[in-house]
Amino acid sequence: MIQIAQYRETFIQYLDEKVVLAEPKNLYEPIVYILQLGGKRLRPVLTLMTAEIFGTSHKKALDAALAVEVFHNFSLVHDDIMDQAPLRRGKATVHEKWDINTGILSGDAMLILAYQLFENYEGSIFKALAELFSKTAIEVCEGQQYDVDFETRSDVTIPEYLKMIEYKTAVLVGAAMKMGAIIAETSEKDAAVIYDFGRFLGIAFQLQDDYLDAYGNPETFGKQVGGDIIENKKTYLYLKALENSSQEDKEKLVQLFSEKSANPAEKVATVKAIFDKAGIPEIMKNAISNYTQKAFKLLETLNVGDSEKQQLQAFGEYLMNRTV
Amino acid sequence: MIQIAQYRETFIQYLDEKVVLAEPKNLYEPIVYILQLGGKRLRPVLTLMTAEIFGTSHKKALDAALAVEVFHNFSLVHDDIMDQAPLRRGKATVHEKWDINTGILSGDAMLILAYQLFENYEGSIFKALAELFSKTAIEVCEGQQYDVDFETRSDVTIPEYLKMIEYKTAVLVGAAMKMGAIIAETSEKDAAVIYDFGRFLGIAFQLQDDYLDAYGNPETFGKQVGGDIIENKKTYLYLKALENSSQEDKEKLVQLFSEKSANPAEKVATVKAIFDKAGIPEIMKNAISNYTQKAFKLLETLNVGDSEKQQLQAFGEYLMNRTV
Repeated sequence: MIQIAQYRETFIQYLDEKVVLAEPKNLYEPIVYILQLGGKRLRPVLTLMTAEIFGTSHKKALDAALAVEVFHNFSLVHDDIMDQAPLRRGKATVHEKWDINTGILSGDAMLILAYQLFENYEGSIFKALAELFSKTAIEVCEGQQYDVDFETRSDVTIPEYLKMIEYKTAVLVGAAMKMGAIIAETSEKDAAVIYDFGRFLGIAFQLQDDYLDAYGNPETFGKQVGGDIIENKKTYLYLKALENSSQEDKEKLVQLFSEKSANPAEKVATVKAIFDKAGIPEIMKNAISNYTQKAFKLLETLNVGDSEKQQLQAFGEYLMNRTV
Repeated sequence: MIQIAQYRETFIQYLDEKVVLAEPKNLYEPIVYILQLGGKRLRPVLTLMTAEIFGTSHKKALDAALAVEVFHNFSLVHDDIMDQAPLRRGKATVHEKWDINTGILSGDAMLILAYQLFENYEGSIFKALAELFSKTAIEVCEGQQYDVDFETRSDVTIPEYLKMIEYKTAVLVGAAMKMGAIIAETSEKDAAVIYDFGRFLGIAFQLQDDYLDAYGNPETFGKQVGGDIIENKKTYLYLKALENSSQEDKEKLVQLFSEKSANPAEKVATVKAIFDKAGIPEIMKNAISNYTQKAFKLLETLNVGDSEKQQLQAFGEYLMNRTV
């Protein structure tokens, strides 16, 4: 059985081969830059692994895997402009290193280049991949819009929040896996099951991201711990704390999340104290575990061997045991 | 024979039916807004007309025509952000009416929605349309980047300028027509010829745009006459004037196009006097006529009847006789 690290290595080698500078330089340099910034390459690894699990060489899935990674990075380039983020993976974002116009245009080109990568598949597989990709890409845009809308709304519900992270994050994980299934020409049913497996893992993954943002180890987390709290992000933690706090704490939370704090460290400490009182760490662990178990449960119905199921489960566990 | 006005009417009716508000509203409202701003709808009309000319009902081409129009408007939304343009067709641009982030994200969604419109075609036609669309879209991005690059370069050549307008404007006209040919399942040769016909007309069209920007009738032009001169755009007029002026006028032109003028009206008058001396109106008319004739010449080799050829030629003449 091929290991995750090997898939990643194969993928990076392919990316290095395919993502090369072209003319006009000012359009393609930022594309090479962002794609070479690194990252965990989780999504493309999932595409490769899924193709193998359904009995096809991962080599046939390399172009689809690259499309998924190029799309993911397109969304980072445009989201970083919208969030005015100066850093991505510890390096300058594209609009910081160049300018906003470059970020917009290079991002646009990346979205198109992602579609072009499917052209190496024949008619019906091409169509299935492109259709899945478009559906997913539109949902990612909708998820980003919901995220923006939620910043100025004070009545966001938990189902709305879950839908937002499903669209913004989880559907691309599901799609990355389903692409492997499409390339392996598996049954519709298996393709649908593996999509849901990825989607549930993706939701668990994002909930864990939210959790680590507040409770991660500052030494290994890489980002500023408490960033979401400082920026008043109404995450699952915040919404659940509202549900599980006294009237007094609830009002305090609403107040804290409606203003910019002059003392961010103090704000993070105050909010986390309320989170702790509301039992948030336990609630988050349960929620993450629930979505992970939902994903694992689906494996039972999948038409692959036990060792393949174990590999999928191992990947899920690897994802959920990360601390960064 | 169906008239241009009828194609336009049919297209607008289809657009009204298909482009409707969805959730999240803040993503889709700007899309409906820009697509309802009007415009000449030249590109989608060409797709419909070409399908008919190759013997297929224009109704089969409506989705591809809409994809072309959605893509064209996507590029307007993102270009208007990059150019900081406040107005489009006399109304507020998307980033002015909403904000830059909305313009970026709604534009992204439009690019994806354009691809989705091809899904109503079966396997091989879908693939041919999507491939042509991706190739064209990437060239439009490259053309836009060259246009941006030229702003800060003083050594732009005429071949470089022609390549820029070919990519930024002309290839989409060619692609709009070729899509009609693909849907009509015409021969590869006819599809290639009609693409080049559209491409040459597109170049002529853009050269005429450049010409009208300086020499259009202020009462009917709709935009500020001399806008390109005020913004120091190194158009075909400017590059040809450099070639055909005395050393003194040449230096004056270079100087004028390297600074912002405190008196734009005076600058436009001075530059146009140099243009006139260099014979620019005649040079432009010849260049526009050459590309139009190149397009018309291609019609001889096209495998359609005389009345179809006449219709294509009539469209070309209609395009070139516009004063706005």
